Amino acid sequence: MSKHLISLAAALALASPTFAQDEPQGAPSPNEIVEAASADEWITIPAEDLLVMTLAPDAQGNKRKVVIQLMSEPISQGWVENIRTLARAKWYDDISVNRVQDNYVVQWGDPNYDNPEADGEEKTLPEGLRVMGEDEYTSSLAEWQAENARRDLERQDEGVLLAPSKPEPYPDWHSRDAYASWVDFYSGWPVATSGFSWDQVWWPLHCYGMVGVGRKYSPDTGSGAELYTVIGQAPRHLDRNIALVGRIVSGMEHLSSLPRGTGALGFYTEDEFDKRTPILTVRVASDLPEADQPNFQYLDTESESFARYAEARANRRDPFFIVPAGGADVCNIPVPTRTAASG
Amino acid sequence: MSKHLISLAAALALASPTFAQDEPQGAPSPNEIVEAASADEWITIPAEDLLVMTLAPDAQGNKRKVVIQLMSEPISQGWVENIRTLARAKWYDDISVNRVQDNYVVQWGDPNYDNPEADGEEKTLPEGLRVMGEDEYTSSLAEWQAENARRDLERQDEGVLLAPSKPEPYPDWHSRDAYASWVDFYSGWPVATSGFSWDQVWWPLHCYGMVGVGRKYSPDTGSGAELYTVIGQAPRHLDRNIALVGRIVSGMEHLSSLPRGTGALGFYTEDEFDKRTPILTVRVASDLPEADQPNFQYLDTESESFARYAEARANRRDPFFIVPAGGADVCNIPVPTRTAASG
Repeated sequence: MSKHLISLAAALALASPTFAQDEPQGAPSPNEIVEAASADEWITIPAEDLLVMTLAPDAQGNKRKVVIQLMSEPISQGWVENIRTLARAKWYDDISVNRVQDNYVVQWGDPNYDNPEADGEEKTLPEGLRVMGEDEYTSSLAEWQAENARRDLERQDEGVLLAPSKPEPYPDWHSRDAYASWVDFYSGWPVATSGFSWDQVWWPLHCYGMVGVGRKYSPDTGSGAELYTVIGQAPRHLDRNIALVGRIVSGMEHLSSLPRGTGALGFYTEDEFDKRTPILTVRVASDLPEADQPNFQYLDTESESFARYAEARANRRDPFFIVPAGGADVCNIPVPTRTAASG
Repeated sequence: MSKHLISLAAALALASPTFAQDEPQGAPSPNEIVEAASADEWITIPAEDLLVMTLAPDAQGNKRKVVIQLMSEPISQGWVENIRTLARAKWYDDISVNRVQDNYVVQWGDPNYDNPEADGEEKTLPEGLRVMGEDEYTSSLAEWQAENARRDLERQDEGVLLAPSKPEPYPDWHSRDAYASWVDFYSGWPVATSGFSWDQVWWPLHCYGMVGVGRKYSPDTGSGAELYTVIGQAPRHLDRNIALVGRIVSGMEHLSSLPRGTGALGFYTEDEFDKRTPILTVRVASDLPEADQPNFQYLDTESESFARYAEARANRRDPFFIVPAGGADVCNIPVPTRTAASG
């Protein structure tokens, strides 16, 4: 067990796990802190907020399943609702991954989306999709605080002892961000704001593994039919320019390791259409038979353990490290998730 | 040509390139600024600073070549010299990629490196490798300024008209970094410092595609035989904890798209050793026949065009964008490189 923990502890270092037996003493690693978190600090993701995307098996016949957690209220809910509608209409079935751009994004949807050469062949969207405005790329602080208060009450009613608010003073990485005046976590999501007055807005961040909505030029905001995930350095310049609707909680490697497209923007060119990965089905987990429903949890970003985890990410003192950084990029503090089975 | 430029302009956006003909007007994109840079602003990388790594062909029999630019003086030169020694001793021939950890690193070297189960089977290193101290993870500002002055004189002697110094005031993303008090570019490399007095040190940064030296626990600093490259969010917590020796300038997709290892730290487990990618040869480009030598250039990070490119990365005003970010992470301003053929 302890050797297992040490491997986990080393999992963000470059040392060999087989080196564990010679492991020097050190402070707990971020992963050891997460492993030690109490059951109360883990929040179960509602099945209604999980999408199960089944890709065609790989060349060796191995199954490929990707699980996506949809964004929480009040963020991007118009697109999130559209995505549930599209999944329930089975619109995503038999589409494909059409674009893989190195150090940027993997994008899936209708291969004929926005393609003049395939005029008229574009897949028809179901009825009742909402059309969102660009102002919905952000939310007001007031909305978020109200939603936060509602969640806290709900959890108190469930008998969960709420963790003390984050240690004061806030570590200064919150304000040492090149893209925003303040970065933080809200209900398990990385977010940013341009300030703190009530008229200020907050928005979610394009970190690795986040899922967004492809769109055409402004004022188009996309429907949710065309989706992408980040597979490289956080393209934070897309924040507030495009809707984020969730993140990949399982199976990311099935997308990040796909062959890169050689066309502009990493789209597969006509002579490499065979590299497009077929998407067999996309289902809302709550629509699956009980036995097939994935069960994921994320570490409460308001919890004591998350605060300690974030501090340890910013100041690595576990054995491999000789100089703690003194800070961390918000996208380098991935919110821990686990299957309810584990831990 | 203009359509080609527009595709390039869109290359960091999520719009479809086939949409170019309806392209709304906008400011030049970062890539358009790079395309317009003058010949004088491109610096040719000496063949002595390029490593050509040939991987075994892929499953379809396609050739896979990776080109690495070695770090410039005075950074990490002990390790860089070791790497030239190892390449010239053909030590890297017939090693393999043994580790692929999603959103972290791809690592290659001796499959028996630091592996107790393979006691005695570790590949013998050549004579004459230097052993570096941990103080060599950083360099003094004085050294760098001296080296900079030497380079400027050299370029003036070559008749290159040096670009005016960067526009004042410096854009504030330089000081809005979670890991350091100042981030910048030095001779084409992303770097940081903890301050500006003469006793302060500078160090290179773990951005996407940078190449570093695997090591064991401190005080080991690695020889250069075990190498890795970053394939995800910049793991800046490794800065000053491990030596960086270069970056991949071509063929990154051959490493970033490899299947992820399922073992601890992304190492391939015994039952997936067949996923290890064989490395056939690694050569210093200057040792290759003239005709086989790659010819790469990078955009002078002291040039006017680079300053405009960085500003445009921080404030996207090209057609796809509706809100300029107002800043950019230093690792989201990749230094443009090109083959001398292009442009």
